[in-house]
Amino acid sequence: MSHSHPELPAPPPLAPGALRVVPLGGLGEVGRNMAVLEHEGRLLIIDCGVLFPEDHQPGVDLILPDFDYIKDRLDDIEAIVLTHGHEDHIGGVPYLLRLRRDIPLVGSQLTLAFIEAKLKEHRITPLTLTVKEGQTEKLGVFDCEFVAVNHSIPDALAVAVTTSAGTVLHTGDFKMDQLPLDGRVTDLRAFARLGEKGVDLFMVDSTNAEVPGFVTNETEIGPVLDSVFDTCEKRIVVASFASHVHRVQQVLNAAHSHGRRVAFVGRSMVRNMGIAAELGYLDVPEGLLIDIKKIDTLRDDQVVLMCTGSQGEPMAALSRIANRDHKVSVGPGDTVILASSLIPGNENSVFRVINGLTRLGARVVHSGNAKVHVSGHASAGELLYCYNILRPKNVMPVHGEVRHLVANGALAVRTGVPPERVVLAEDGFVIDLVDGKASIVGAVPCGYVYVDGSSVGELTDAELKDRRILGEEGFISLFAVIDSGTGKVLAGPEIHARGFAEDEAVFESILPQLTAALEEAASTGSVDTHQLQQVMRRVVGRFVSNRLRRRPMIIPVVVEA
Amino acid sequence: MSHSHPELPAPPPLAPGALRVVPLGGLGEVGRNMAVLEHEGRLLIIDCGVLFPEDHQPGVDLILPDFDYIKDRLDDIEAIVLTHGHEDHIGGVPYLLRLRRDIPLVGSQLTLAFIEAKLKEHRITPLTLTVKEGQTEKLGVFDCEFVAVNHSIPDALAVAVTTSAGTVLHTGDFKMDQLPLDGRVTDLRAFARLGEKGVDLFMVDSTNAEVPGFVTNETEIGPVLDSVFDTCEKRIVVASFASHVHRVQQVLNAAHSHGRRVAFVGRSMVRNMGIAAELGYLDVPEGLLIDIKKIDTLRDDQVVLMCTGSQGEPMAALSRIANRDHKVSVGPGDTVILASSLIPGNENSVFRVINGLTRLGARVVHSGNAKVHVSGHASAGELLYCYNILRPKNVMPVHGEVRHLVANGALAVRTGVPPERVVLAEDGFVIDLVDGKASIVGAVPCGYVYVDGSSVGELTDAELKDRRILGEEGFISLFAVIDSGTGKVLAGPEIHARGFAEDEAVFESILPQLTAALEEAASTGSVDTHQLQQVMRRVVGRFVSNRLRRRPMIIPVVVEA
Repeated sequence: MSHSHPELPAPPPLAPGALRVVPLGGLGEVGRNMAVLEHEGRLLIIDCGVLFPEDHQPGVDLILPDFDYIKDRLDDIEAIVLTHGHEDHIGGVPYLLRLRRDIPLVGSQLTLAFIEAKLKEHRITPLTLTVKEGQTEKLGVFDCEFVAVNHSIPDALAVAVTTSAGTVLHTGDFKMDQLPLDGRVTDLRAFARLGEKGVDLFMVDSTNAEVPGFVTNETEIGPVLDSVFDTCEKRIVVASFASHVHRVQQVLNAAHSHGRRVAFVGRSMVRNMGIAAELGYLDVPEGLLIDIKKIDTLRDDQVVLMCTGSQGEPMAALSRIANRDHKVSVGPGDTVILASSLIPGNENSVFRVINGLTRLGARVVHSGNAKVHVSGHASAGELLYCYNILRPKNVMPVHGEVRHLVANGALAVRTGVPPERVVLAEDGFVIDLVDGKASIVGAVPCGYVYVDGSSVGELTDAELKDRRILGEEGFISLFAVIDSGTGKVLAGPEIHARGFAEDEAVFESILPQLTAALEEAASTGSVDTHQLQQVMRRVVGRFVSNRLRRRPMIIPVVVEA
Repeated sequence: MSHSHPELPAPPPLAPGALRVVPLGGLGEVGRNMAVLEHEGRLLIIDCGVLFPEDHQPGVDLILPDFDYIKDRLDDIEAIVLTHGHEDHIGGVPYLLRLRRDIPLVGSQLTLAFIEAKLKEHRITPLTLTVKEGQTEKLGVFDCEFVAVNHSIPDALAVAVTTSAGTVLHTGDFKMDQLPLDGRVTDLRAFARLGEKGVDLFMVDSTNAEVPGFVTNETEIGPVLDSVFDTCEKRIVVASFASHVHRVQQVLNAAHSHGRRVAFVGRSMVRNMGIAAELGYLDVPEGLLIDIKKIDTLRDDQVVLMCTGSQGEPMAALSRIANRDHKVSVGPGDTVILASSLIPGNENSVFRVINGLTRLGARVVHSGNAKVHVSGHASAGELLYCYNILRPKNVMPVHGEVRHLVANGALAVRTGVPPERVVLAEDGFVIDLVDGKASIVGAVPCGYVYVDGSSVGELTDAELKDRRILGEEGFISLFAVIDSGTGKVLAGPEIHARGFAEDEAVFESILPQLTAALEEAASTGSVDTHQLQQVMRRVVGRFVSNRLRRRPMIIPVVVEA
């Protein structure tokens, strides 16, 4: 199991008959999943998702895979296969279709319905090909077979791609719940058949590879919800992911059996559950739903509110309820259930919401105090089954941070995959499958592509650093008008500061010194505007550093008149 | 168990003979713990700690308790009792002593040694009174008895304060490890004796009240460390809290039995372990320690590095090692052990460090994959023991977020404390103990006090919001010189922007429109500088909002010449 160095050469030309795999996102982070397969000059894309920014990326809306590698080869793309309808697998599609609108999208019914609704907002009507588990499709030089997998959204698919170079099996996101709500298990019989024929490269979800054992069955959530509902006197608010159809189904079932009606709260919850119900993925008993506007016609003990915001997102319904900034209010006797995971990095936001709801008097039930959530990704125990059923010739862990990929690779080795057949790659690495052996042959540039307001891919890491400095240290703008003849200060100097603890008056004491320094520098007659600006920056910078112990961004402007 | 409303009146005068308790920090957050007890005009302070800022408080160095309530009564303070030497209990002392230098500090030997070292950096030599478990001291009108408690730092004390109003028992931070490394258990015999005599108000650590069961014994860490050390081929790096003497002791023991020498890395680790060893709290075998500068004289398998940075703090040793920005390097074959908790909110930073170390080839052992950490705070099971042994008349959960305080109160009720005798307070609430009953009688102002560069308590929440806007949206400074006679623009307009994805050139297209708008407004002759500045703000604000979809901070400056 060799861990490759990031300083890799540009890749050599692809050997005839060989297959190339280039991950453009999702290897080194949980999100923006995207892989490009290449064979005989043609490209097949698997997934195209977004990554959500962290706190050290202030102001960023979304992060995309880096399309740089394919932007000159758009016409070579046969299709984009979408394994399932989660944002981290489909959210980048609108941005890719902006580059070429008629790339066909291939996926299951629900997956395509979710991406079509999203593309509608971008005013794009895509070319689509709906596929089902068991189906095979020839996408140019890529023979694809779609395999049912179980995940935290219905209708997820793995895809086996066969070319003359061999067969690649990509799991998408999956787990192996043996008692799923819809009876649609991960198709291990298909995995076994593919394994018998020979899987040359297994690209496999790594998210939970560090977690020992097995994921609890989704069906065990239902009885827990029932028993929580039993103890609720007044309103029940349940927050979960807006795409988790099976979780919502269990909430609907519990509400139904407790004689409560359900209102969906939050734009994405309303939209997605509308789609899921229409396509038959969500079974809604007659008369169960009620419009949020009408809930005040019911008693508190007749209501369940199914809402978004389980990750503490400040603009989502649940945060606003906790801040008393929503038409829905909660108070003593009400119960709020967070039927979701706590995604690492969201702890502060989620606990702020829990504390807010607790302060309002509500009881808060969450995965920390009741079994109201199970993960959607296979744990180590399940991954071991996969490896043993498939016996893949080469393994490439995908979908995870470095620690997850390494842990997944170690599981493969423990089932007998030779360490040199485990490819630990990162975004932009180029992996060639030649004569049945996969190896890293180089790398292509693959950076973070930020969606930031109306700009896509323009924000640089240097500008993000500027933002962090602005946010942590504030800024000072300085300005003065100088008589170009005499060198006297005609107007200013003015100091404007933001983000400081101190009143602006603190800066007044430096003005005489600043004027003197400017006039002294200008009097020599041999300095230009730029140098005078540097004088201002230096005088004020030293003052701020010594007196206030801060290092703000300083923008000096000198005008000679 | 009544949850009080934040809109409380100013407190009434304290009844003669009654006791007043005012928490100035630590109730509603984990940190900046401080309580003020008042009796017959005199004040006793228990702890004075700091809180570390979160991401929505950019640039802030520390957060202090709000001293406003006591700042006019400094001479009434008898003493500050420090329960133990953690920053969230002692870190605010230097700032309080700046207000009155001769307030006596009362605490155990190690606690006082830690605060004295800290005060030395602030050039303050405090008045101190060293106490031991079992000791009683009359601090003015407050009769104090000190009781041994077990925590993740040695020499921690609870304090029982008796006045004519009754007895208050404050646990400080504690757990009930029955096999502690130093044999110094939480003194339940003393708790029982105090309970027999009658504890009128029990102020009790809530941190782990939501966690069911019992904390694993600290001594179980040692064998785990031994077995991890058994598997290490090359260097071992252990990161933990710089005050966790017992954890460090177990690392020293494991190193010693594996024939390795130990180097301390990080300023606070070196300082604290120096103090602990000198005072006899840390037992260092002869010749075990080696200076970090000399480790290259040893083979990799002869070294253990004991360092700070277990929370992913960017400037601490471990982060810098992960970023290859430290004299200590790690690589394939090396093992890094994070023998610490993952404090909520630090996940992103810690996992960034783990991923960085993994990428360098090191194996990373942490509490997620091995039992290398146990908490320092009593879980629900332990708290139940406490309540049953003490049978307190009134309970006031302290040290926690709202959710922790509420969970702790619920435990008290389950052991038979009447719900109306459980005081759920927040920072600034005023609780009077009168005739054996504790109740909330009002509140005093109690805000977050930010240490920010050289300023203490000047930074407002509005300025923090400015910083967040600056960080997320950037800023634009605009400036122009206008002829006050003709209304013509003499110089500028100039646009300077920071924190944008776009090149500054994007703003050039707006300059003609900006000039025109300024001159049109100025030509009316009836507008002042302020109004001209508003014109600039409006024109540029609209452009940025429509074109770039951003809402930066805009600072316009117009000078009339």
